[in-house]
Amino acid sequence: MEPIASGQSLEDANPRLHVIIPAGGAGTRLWPLSRANRPKFLLDLLGEGNSLLESTVLRLAPLSASVTVVTGRTHEENVRRQLLRLRADGLLPGHLEVDVVVEPSPRDSMPAIGLAAAIIQRRYGSDAVVGSFAADHCVRDDQAFRGTVAAAIDAAEAGFITTIGIFPSDPSTAFGYIQPAATRVTSGARLVEKFVEKPPARIARRYVEEGFLWNAGMFIARASFMMGHLRRFHPQMAQTLEQLAHIWDRPESEELIEEAWNELPRIAIDHALAEPVAAEGGVAVVEAPNSIQWNDVGDFAALGSLRNEGHSVARKAEGKAAATEPVLIDSEDALVVDQVGKTIAVLGIPGAVVIETPDALLVTTADNNQRVKEVVDRLSDMGRKEVL
Amino acid sequence: MEPIASGQSLEDANPRLHVIIPAGGAGTRLWPLSRANRPKFLLDLLGEGNSLLESTVLRLAPLSASVTVVTGRTHEENVRRQLLRLRADGLLPGHLEVDVVVEPSPRDSMPAIGLAAAIIQRRYGSDAVVGSFAADHCVRDDQAFRGTVAAAIDAAEAGFITTIGIFPSDPSTAFGYIQPAATRVTSGARLVEKFVEKPPARIARRYVEEGFLWNAGMFIARASFMMGHLRRFHPQMAQTLEQLAHIWDRPESEELIEEAWNELPRIAIDHALAEPVAAEGGVAVVEAPNSIQWNDVGDFAALGSLRNEGHSVARKAEGKAAATEPVLIDSEDALVVDQVGKTIAVLGIPGAVVIETPDALLVTTADNNQRVKEVVDRLSDMGRKEVL
Repeated sequence: MEPIASGQSLEDANPRLHVIIPAGGAGTRLWPLSRANRPKFLLDLLGEGNSLLESTVLRLAPLSASVTVVTGRTHEENVRRQLLRLRADGLLPGHLEVDVVVEPSPRDSMPAIGLAAAIIQRRYGSDAVVGSFAADHCVRDDQAFRGTVAAAIDAAEAGFITTIGIFPSDPSTAFGYIQPAATRVTSGARLVEKFVEKPPARIARRYVEEGFLWNAGMFIARASFMMGHLRRFHPQMAQTLEQLAHIWDRPESEELIEEAWNELPRIAIDHALAEPVAAEGGVAVVEAPNSIQWNDVGDFAALGSLRNEGHSVARKAEGKAAATEPVLIDSEDALVVDQVGKTIAVLGIPGAVVIETPDALLVTTADNNQRVKEVVDRLSDMGRKEVL
Repeated sequence: MEPIASGQSLEDANPRLHVIIPAGGAGTRLWPLSRANRPKFLLDLLGEGNSLLESTVLRLAPLSASVTVVTGRTHEENVRRQLLRLRADGLLPGHLEVDVVVEPSPRDSMPAIGLAAAIIQRRYGSDAVVGSFAADHCVRDDQAFRGTVAAAIDAAEAGFITTIGIFPSDPSTAFGYIQPAATRVTSGARLVEKFVEKPPARIARRYVEEGFLWNAGMFIARASFMMGHLRRFHPQMAQTLEQLAHIWDRPESEELIEEAWNELPRIAIDHALAEPVAAEGGVAVVEAPNSIQWNDVGDFAALGSLRNEGHSVARKAEGKAAATEPVLIDSEDALVVDQVGKTIAVLGIPGAVVIETPDALLVTTADNNQRVKEVVDRLSDMGRKEVL
């Protein structure tokens, strides 16, 4: 066998990854762009013609044999529509199988990913490598990102639950951190010493100094290893998930499925698997190069910085081109998103955030970014469900 | 003759005033509410169901025998429509005659008021008392205001060009000031010592301390006295205006009228008449009581303060009720005007000014109030005539 030169040929390699995309969450920090029935992952926040979910699928497709989106009933129709659109537009490789798994109720990431992994194991065999990726993150250099994922697949095939660590651009308190060990387990991956929770600012600064990485919730592993670990740490959940996978596609099982599902614990994969397996030395991390420019688009400040890096967020959101550029006078770093196509002028408000949608307008500043939820809460208290 | 008790019977008195309302001006400081073809006086800025022009007519109607609105061709149709609406809705006294005089081009206030005065003198005789009032000012207590105007009419009938002075609520630099003399010319009016231009802040403070009043551009006089003074100070203009009045209603004169009009000087009545006549001791002033709450609604700060005094500006502008109250969080004294009826939230911007119209949105703060013209200038430079 000839060695495959890295970089050049990743896209030509046999697609071997089974992608799992848990797609849920409210995302009140991006109101009024995101709404209860139109969460962040369904939106084309960057105005590039694809939703964050669609971009996630397209980003991973060249490496992948299948993509399974796990979502709730509320979003099933929209998720299916977006996936069909990608297929209809010829954007997906012919070999890529695409599936939607609808969870009867939200049960956090471990049940969602575990169910998908159990289904994939049944369909594709125990050697199948699964990788879970958030539906609503943004990456600027897809090819470099696939290089990182390919290295994670190697580590997964070597037996590790492998995560992808993001080099911190600042001591953020919005992410959990990963402490890597010095030990390399493959050419691209190191052992994980431990995972730590979202820290206070002082601790976050220390983490950054000590070389910790952001935990972006990406986990790549052989399906059989993931289920094996789960059987050890959460035997009841593993058993339920494997039973569910067994009867999943049978229409007559619906009631049974719902009943079993609703008894599953609400637990994140970080706590259920990553932390205990890391303590045993079973988790590896591949550090993503800075060039991928990962971003969780968690709030308007993030959206604004993406725009200032060259994204055309201000001009077109959700594919509707705004009629006109906003007029900004003494309003440095203003973020103006216009879904309506009207003339928008901002005068004398540096860092202004102006989000104009057909039925709601938010005016705030980047400083107040983390408080957008207060507006949503207020509207909720007022019974204004139609705009939530 | 029985004396007419003041206050009680003003409204029953023989209506003797001939009101002149010059209605022009761009009003870029209220963009995007005001536009080139929809100036401030045509707007229902206070959301009370009447435009500022309509409110001005209604305010003076009980005292008046006639109302003459002097406007340009651009606004003629809208002005006529508003006056017809008042008549159709039965809001005007049956005796009130209403006329629109269309000036061929803008020539500032002296030609506009002088022409109307000359026309009124021809129609109603030399004893007719004319009073000029801006089309786009706001008064809260119409009845108290009419009391002030009635006192001014008394002084006008006693032979004075009479102005109405506004007690300054602050040392504004946006208005010219009137220095009253101690001498009373009637029970309600004092002589005017002199008129002074819009002062710098330091001088304005001194004016306020010394009891000067704001000049709100209201002048009440016998038409014959006004034209007589004009003949002395501007004989050519007086002659032209009287000739124009003579041929005004003849369709065949149109070309002649336009030619003569366009040779008139551009000059304000303050400079043309009020100042030189005051120097001769021929001008009187009636001080308006504070209770009338006069306001020129000159910018969004003024509009905001009117709202905070109890006007429902935020809720309905131009008669369209907004669907919902704005959500204001840590945004004290915010002014939100919504012509669209959408959910508007302002978070963490005290003094925010948010003006939502169907085709344009302005976001600024009260501090930047005086700079709104910069937005209009920028849009003009960009060739965006459709929103100017």
